[in-house]
Amino acid sequence: MSAIDDVLAANQTYAQGFNLGQLPMPPARKLAVIACMDARLTVSQLLGLKTGEAHIIRNAGGIVTEDALRSLIISHHLLGTNEIMIINHTDCGMLTFKDDELRKKLQTQTGTAAVAPVRFHAFTNLEANVREQIQKVRSHPWIPKHLPVRGFIYDVKSGKLAEVSA
Amino acid sequence: MSAIDDVLAANQTYAQGFNLGQLPMPPARKLAVIACMDARLTVSQLLGLKTGEAHIIRNAGGIVTEDALRSLIISHHLLGTNEIMIINHTDCGMLTFKDDELRKKLQTQTGTAAVAPVRFHAFTNLEANVREQIQKVRSHPWIPKHLPVRGFIYDVKSGKLAEVSA
Repeated sequence: MSAIDDVLAANQTYAQGFNLGQLPMPPARKLAVIACMDARLTVSQLLGLKTGEAHIIRNAGGIVTEDALRSLIISHHLLGTNEIMIINHTDCGMLTFKDDELRKKLQTQTGTAAVAPVRFHAFTNLEANVREQIQKVRSHPWIPKHLPVRGFIYDVKSGKLAEVSA
Repeated sequence: MSAIDDVLAANQTYAQGFNLGQLPMPPARKLAVIACMDARLTVSQLLGLKTGEAHIIRNAGGIVTEDALRSLIISHHLLGTNEIMIINHTDCGMLTFKDDELRKKLQTQTGTAAVAPVRFHAFTNLEANVREQIQKVRSHPWIPKHLPVRGFIYDVKSGKLAEVSA
């Protein structure tokens, strides 16, 4: 049995007890979160968020890529979120490699030089990386300057969030 | 009190009961999920996933963008996931606008023509959109052809997932 078949069976159970069919589209807490895809972050749980309360955007690293900016712009302008939270975390896989090394390895393994992704966004300093992501949000012309944009590091050993001063 | 201050208070409670500090970095179920950022999808719950079990990648629409491919490539090649699940959903905000309209509105509101994002990835047909995302994953030269890539529509009224035939 595949992992996908397993989660489909779990979804049948979830749907049997489902009573959230009337939630509106806009997030109730007007919050947008950008976080790493890491399996050890269950974002809703570590932030105490219920279904319907926040947009959650996730990618490798919790990076403010063009795609994350796309999602944030839609989140704010079409669905009314007005606070932005960026979450990176300790022991991140993005600290374990270099973009160039991974690109060479993939080209060698597959015999193909892919056009995209242009960058993998590996990084070496967690705090500096969070600050860089905050600045990318703040400097985008379509994100209003008055929106709070705050960055955090989640400690996968303790479950605690620590704010990074911008 | 801001939404961010609220979730930080909730995180303190979460950390007090935290006992998952020894989880390894690679996802236990070797599963990578791409889903929409929509607040009505609590991905871990609707799939019955526990902390540590799967990579969860999310953006506006559940679109296989360059950034989602970046995350998937890292997920598979560095962290060993070997099944990919794409989840779009009913009543998606991406069905409610057109890329060009939003771009014009933002340019008018802000007085600035941003370079990025190049596309917003609004769509009109949910099933066709899921099929397109499956194909984008399957056609990438750095995603091995033998990996299962399956696409689904989550019904926000019923809590049920339905598979889209590729």
